[in-house]
Amino acid sequence: MNSNTPYSSVLLDNATKEFAKLPGIGKKTALRLVLHLLRQSKEEVENFGNAFITLRNEIQYCKVCHNISDTEICQICADQRRDSSTLCVVENINDVISIENTQQFKGLYHVLGGVISPMSGIGPSDLSIDMLVERVRTNPVKEIILALSPTMEGDTTNFYLYKKLSPFNVEISTIARGISIGDELEYADEITLGRSIVNRIPYIGN
Amino acid sequence: MNSNTPYSSVLLDNATKEFAKLPGIGKKTALRLVLHLLRQSKEEVENFGNAFITLRNEIQYCKVCHNISDTEICQICADQRRDSSTLCVVENINDVISIENTQQFKGLYHVLGGVISPMSGIGPSDLSIDMLVERVRTNPVKEIILALSPTMEGDTTNFYLYKKLSPFNVEISTIARGISIGDELEYADEITLGRSIVNRIPYIGN
Repeated sequence: MNSNTPYSSVLLDNATKEFAKLPGIGKKTALRLVLHLLRQSKEEVENFGNAFITLRNEIQYCKVCHNISDTEICQICADQRRDSSTLCVVENINDVISIENTQQFKGLYHVLGGVISPMSGIGPSDLSIDMLVERVRTNPVKEIILALSPTMEGDTTNFYLYKKLSPFNVEISTIARGISIGDELEYADEITLGRSIVNRIPYIGN
Repeated sequence: MNSNTPYSSVLLDNATKEFAKLPGIGKKTALRLVLHLLRQSKEEVENFGNAFITLRNEIQYCKVCHNISDTEICQICADQRRDSSTLCVVENINDVISIENTQQFKGLYHVLGGVISPMSGIGPSDLSIDMLVERVRTNPVKEIILALSPTMEGDTTNFYLYKKLSPFNVEISTIARGISIGDELEYADEITLGRSIVNRIPYIGN
């Protein structure tokens, strides 16, 4: 047996190595997954492999919101039932999916593609900020919700966007920070707890 | 957005569903893996997808030992440096890989493809047992090591193989059962501990 291939098959070795390149998947899990695929029909494995190849080759970014899309305009932007006067600005497509899963937002999104981070060499021009400004300028947008991560970079980006968007007649808000539902006060960090007191909201008894 | 596709893209949805079909991979992990692939180059994703398709389409089973192989005869059986007079009988290809990783066995293997399990409808004819008997009959095999799982089915299969192989002039052994290296006696199960006392071995002081 060749010392470069721990298995009796180079094909098996290749497939295992491909899986092990994925984040969070080690060699043992990779092998387990490959052996699972080997027990599936040829057609099923073909569908499996081609799903990723097709996705990567055919995926587009929505010309309006920069979200991932199969078409020029994504399904969310194309949905006439959604409120096009409210834009939610997020860092990336994962955030769109997370917010969509809450079923609490019926407006449209704008995906920045990251946040301003001088440490990583990401400046405003690397993000879809000009696209956002143009979108606000040419559309009847009433409110912009900034839903970026509560990090230094997120705050910097929030401030930059605020400066860029305040000349327009739009309301700018950010998502509420506070104690997570179900969390105990004593385990909350001080900054979150402090903010949740400063930004307290009227109590509405049901 | 279509209620059948939680994401803004059918392609993304398909790829995520394909990952989520794998054992131990949930929806969230599947999405994380797909988004990771999206950040890779087209070529890399093509290599990823094709590795599995090629494996599934081109893989063969070794004509000698029934191990997984790229060629008619697997790399282990074809290796002239290995001891062809000792055969290790295992349940499946995972076991070959596990034993190979120990680097303690220099003989050849015979992969049964399972164990006799009347409950699951697996009889001797569903396994490569006839192939094993033929192999022992036509080759100068001196020892057969039965390395099946210590389960009811494994024991049944061991006994069946013993009956089939005892007419030939071969030594038949099974792998040692006992306390794992590093394990504490008090946590070992009674059967394993009992067997390790019954099958005690001479102590060789180093």
